[in-house]
This record gives sequence, C-alpha cells and structure tokens, in this order.
Amino acid sequence: MADGVGLELRSLVKPEGELELSLVEVEVPTPGADEILVRVEATPINPSDLGLLTGPADLSTLKASGTKDRPVLTAAIPAAAMPGLAARVGQSMPVGNEGSGVVIAAGASPEAQALAGKTVAMIGGAMYAQYRCLKAADVIVLPDDATPADGASCFVNPLTALGMVETMRREGHKALVHTAAASNLGQMLVRICKADGVPLVNIVRSAEQEELLRGQGAEYVVNSTDPDFMAKLTDAVAATGATLAFDAIGGGRLGSQILSAMEAAANRTAGAYSRYGSSVYKQLYIYGSLDTRPTELARNFGFAWGVAAWLLTPFLMKIGPEAGQRLRARVAAELKTTFKSHYTAEIGLAEALDPKVLAAYSRRATGEKYLINPTKGL
Amino acid sequence: MADGVGLELRSLVKPEGELELSLVEVEVPTPGADEILVRVEATPINPSDLGLLTGPADLSTLKASGTKDRPVLTAAIPAAAMPGLAARVGQSMPVGNEGSGVVIAAGASPEAQALAGKTVAMIGGAMYAQYRCLKAADVIVLPDDATPADGASCFVNPLTALGMVETMRREGHKALVHTAAASNLGQMLVRICKADGVPLVNIVRSAEQEELLRGQGAEYVVNSTDPDFMAKLTDAVAATGATLAFDAIGGGRLGSQILSAMEAAANRTAGAYSRYGSSVYKQLYIYGSLDTRPTELARNFGFAWGVAAWLLTPFLMKIGPEAGQRLRARVAAELKTTFKSHYTAEIGLAEALDPKVLAAYSRRATGEKYLINPTKGL
Repeated sequence: MADGVGLELRSLVKPEGELELSLVEVEVPTPGADEILVRVEATPINPSDLGLLTGPADLSTLKASGTKDRPVLTAAIPAAAMPGLAARVGQSMPVGNEGSGVVIAAGASPEAQALAGKTVAMIGGAMYAQYRCLKAADVIVLPDDATPADGASCFVNPLTALGMVETMRREGHKALVHTAAASNLGQMLVRICKADGVPLVNIVRSAEQEELLRGQGAEYVVNSTDPDFMAKLTDAVAATGATLAFDAIGGGRLGSQILSAMEAAANRTAGAYSRYGSSVYKQLYIYGSLDTRPTELARNFGFAWGVAAWLLTPFLMKIGPEAGQRLRARVAAELKTTFKSHYTAEIGLAEALDPKVLAAYSRRATGEKYLINPTKGL
Repeated sequence: MADGVGLELRSLVKPEGELELSLVEVEVPTPGADEILVRVEATPINPSDLGLLTGPADLSTLKASGTKDRPVLTAAIPAAAMPGLAARVGQSMPVGNEGSGVVIAAGASPEAQALAGKTVAMIGGAMYAQYRCLKAADVIVLPDDATPADGASCFVNPLTALGMVETMRREGHKALVHTAAASNLGQMLVRICKADGVPLVNIVRSAEQEELLRGQGAEYVVNSTDPDFMAKLTDAVAATGATLAFDAIGGGRLGSQILSAMEAAANRTAGAYSRYGSSVYKQLYIYGSLDTRPTELARNFGFAWGVAAWLLTPFLMKIGPEAGQRLRARVAAELKTTFKSHYTAEIGLAEALDPKVLAAYSRRATGEKYLINPTKGL
C-alpha cells in the first residue's frame, strides 16, 4: 500500500463469449467516519464463489498469459450460457464473498476507532484483494487468540449450517437429511446437531467419507453408492423422523430418492390406503449445484411435498437482524470448535490464477477447500 | 331398491398383481337422523378417480368376463407398482369422488327432512353406485331448475379452479399460468379469471385448443408445440406479471420451462447482475400427473423458486370452513354459467366396465370427460 494501490482479482465476461481472470491495481480507499480498512489475510474459495469466478466457462479451454506477478487466464464460454450472463457482460467483477484480516486504518467514529489493530471477519464480496474497506458495523471482531485463517470462513458455511437447523425448527420438522455431508459445511452440521440434540441423516458418496463422519461421532451415515442405499436411507429416515432435507447436489435423482425414502418411512406407520400417499409433509431444499444436470423428481412420494431453492441471504433477511445476530454470536463463540474449517492449501492471489491450481480448486471435491492469502507471494 | 340392495362399482387389487373391476350388490342403508339417502344420477370420471379405479394397471392386458349386467374386468399390474399399492391389496374399494342425485329418504332431523325430494351435489367417494347415504350437512342443494347432470361436477373442478385463484391471492401473486388449459377445469378457470380480472396465461398443446380458448375470450394462449413457444410464453408471462403456475401435466420439462420463462421475464427489468438470478419468487404447483414421467427441473431460473404438490382437500383444510363455504356458495350460484361442465358421453355403470368405453375415458384426453348415470341401462 506504499503507493496507495492494492491488487484485486477480477472476473470479466467479454461479449464475444470469453471469460478473463486477472489481477488489477485499484486505489486503496480512505475509510469514511464509520468505516475501517482491512488488510485481507485469509479468504476461502467456496462453491458460491466459483459461480462468479469461472461461472459456466469451459475450463478445458483455459489459456494462461500475462506475467508471473500479473497472470491472466482466459477460457471460452459456451454460446448457450451467454444469454444468462447478459447482465454482467463487460463488467470487471471483483470476487470473494467472505474473508478475514487486520484493521490497518479506521474512520473517526468511536465504533471504527475501537477496531483499530483488531482481527475481524467480513462478508460482502471483493475479498480476493489485498485491501477491503467496509462499515465497522458489518464485521465480526475475532477473539484475541484467533488468526485471520481461523476467521476466514465465519459467515457462509457456519451461517448456512446454523440456518438449516433454524429452518428445521421454524418449519416444524424434527430431524434433518443432508447430502454431500462430508463437506466442511457438513462436518460443521454434524457438530451443531450433536450439540443441539438434532437427529441428522448424513448422505455421503464413499466409504472413506462414511468413515470420516462416523469418526466425528455422526450416528446416521448412508453411502449413496451402496447397493442397498435406498433401504438404509429409509431406515435412517424412519429412525430419525426426518421430513426435511438440505441438498448440495441439486442435479440427478438423489433429492427425489430422499423424498421417496421419507414417504416410505411415513407409510410404515400409515393407516388406511390413500392414493394420494401419506399426509406427512416432506420438504427438500436445494442449496447447491454440485451436479449441474436437471433435478429429476419421480413424484412417487405422494402429494404432500415441496422442493425449493434455499439461499443464505434471503434466509437471513427473513429471520431478521436480531435472530441473525444470535447466529453470528454463536459463530464467534465457537470459532475454534464447532465452526472450525480445514483447508487443503493456502495460496496467493497470483497462484489462484495458475491453471493447475485453478483446476484443483474448481473440482469442488467434497472436503477440499482452498484458502487465498492475499499477502502471500507478493 | 325394491329388494333393499343397490349396485356399486368396485376396484380390487389382488395380491398376485391383478386389478379386478366389478359391480357388487350392497345393502342400501337406512339414513340416520342427520343423514339422507340419495339416488345417484350423475357422477363424473375425473382424472383423480382414474387413479383409484385403474391405478397403475396395464390396460393393454384388459380382459372382460362376467355377464352383460354384471361385467368383470381384469388387468395385470406391473410388479414394480405393487409395493406402492400394499395398503389397498385385498380391499374391494368403492370409487367416485363426487356426484349428484335426488334425495329419496331422509333422517328424522330437521336439516335432513328439509332435503327430502331435493336434487343435491355430493362429495366423499363411493359415488359410482346407485345409492349413496351421507350427512345432510355435507351436500350442496342445487337450484330448483338444475338437473343432477348440472350438479355432478360441483366440487372437484370448480373448487380446484377457485382454489388456484384463492392461492394466488393468499400467496401474493398477481397473475397465473395454467397448463392443459383447454380442459373442463381450464375453461372454468378462464371464466373465473375473466370475471375476477385476473390475468391468466393458458398453455395448450394444439392449435385447435388454442382456438377453443380464444373463442371463449382467453387473452393469453400459448401452444407448447409451437417452435417459438418459449419466446411467446416469456412474452405472455412478462405482459401479465405471472409468478405462479398450476401444472396438470407433472412429468417432463414443461414446469421447468414455465419457471425459466418467469425468470427471463423478471430479468427484463432487472438491475445489477446477480449470479443467484432475480429476487422475484416463482412458484410452480403440480396438481395433476397427465404425464407420469419424472419432473425435470433445469434449475436455470435463479434461486428464488419453489415446486410443490397441490391438492384440493389439504387446501380446503388450510383455508378453513368459512372460506370453503364462500367458495361453495359461488359454485352453487354460478352452476350453469362459470362452472358448467361439458361431457363427451353419458354411460351406465355396466357400460363403464365395457373394455372399449374404459379405453376411451382412461385416455384422459384434454377436454373429454365422461359422466356415469347409475340409473341408466338398469
């Protein structure tokens, strides 16, 4: 910042159907009275960030150019995807939903001044940058012994996991089903549900993931690649009484299978035959799209069901600031336990635009998560 | 009823995977104090009745036996469908959701006595029968100039169509999309929406159906077999502001296409780019299953959407008896106008078990509806 500029990672969709990723120099702002300037030291690459960063670009066409310090990556965007991107064409967009760092300048207000030198957690986009200026009221102050890496993933995963349990309570369900359950988020959910006494059915895709979650104390873990998956899932759903599922996969038939298992479990205790199925209401929330194919609903689960998209921001708006603050306070208090994240690797901003590194973090492999440290390698 | 018995159509699933349809003689009950006995004279075959009547039986295997007056039909049930029928195996089930007829005996209570000789509309199952005994409070008394045929379809279609508009208002939408819109129900919905000033987008599957609805004054009609269907649908959705759809088809991609059209319409007036799509909430209710294949959701319509099953009975329970009574009163008042049904043919009970006749009414062709008159041919 010696010369008042900092680097920021940008994603640009060009009208001819090309994605361009680059680092640009931006002027470092002077914080207003109620603002603080943060030196970003840790910011995770979440699936939700990849949507903006690489979007629907065909990464097999990735080309590297530029220099070692100012790398540029380009990739072709399939023509069919361009109409959906119309609103962002030509706009150089900053990336990175959340992050953490140290306050290096503060505005004149007492709230801002109180944060000088503190390590804080932030949300709001443009975190893949050396510096981020934002309102003092919008950050979480981390405990004194917490590093920026400890606080990098304070918002998206912790609040999403807490939001699932909160949604379950508000909508009158008593247990949960979760898919891609061995993810960082899934492991948090296991810890939250254990602490809160909420029965949780974890669906994973391998024996290793099953073992991982059992090792963390998860009681119900079913492997969707097992030949008797449906029977095991139905047993687990019947044992827990789960009628609500959060699905990170989105595409294919898994969501439909979950609803079928819930209906089969409900019919184990049903009375008279009804061709409309059980009257037990079953809800599937799709909160991710690890599988981008269409969602296939077999509709063999009666007539009391709903499927909907679930996103953190509208959920927080719905529950209001007071309830949201309660969830945030829990995250800060349990940062190094319940909400601890594990990272596969820490990379610098320029490294994030290395084709090999990008190929690794854009795989979205369950349980793998990359952390950008914008102070690294500069 | 001379000998105190009446005929009733029955559907039986046998454990070995066979469906059997027959007419059985049942004792005609003596009405209790608050009950009436109705001679059924008109009862429609709705898609919802076919679910119980023939269910998943393979109608290409249909075999006729019995006599002219007591016909018996049998058909094979695919093995894969048997687990879903477990709760009805071995039970000889009466069929027919709704109907109309003349009160020929009444219990001692004043409410029951007041109905003696009246023509009434009924709901509650077991209507494919010569006689039906039920509570006086559960029927609608028809106007003096109405025949049983006028009142045969008083409940399912009229209340479903009114329920769609009621749902729209209660859930904060301002216009509707409807599929299989040339059906009897669809034509009612056109008339309700015209009367109530509700913009309605009708989706049909042929030029003839398009012409039919336009002839009835429908403003927005789109044909899903047109090559520019999506463009026309999006225009109609944009013009009406529809964010709620009722889908009778269920299977395939039409529901997904409707949500995509709603999202595209919303994005015509969107501000800044959001990779989560527009914040306009879009709802699809599946209330039928004319296409029994899986529902395919492309999820290319942002993150503010829901898909759910919609059924009349839970809807009526949700809105409560007072609101339900308001809807019923409107049906009775507009029986010969808004809620008039058209029937393809009137058939007797034995005729309903003629293989050729059954093949005709089980086609579920849009706009075709059969009426059973249990007094016919006896």
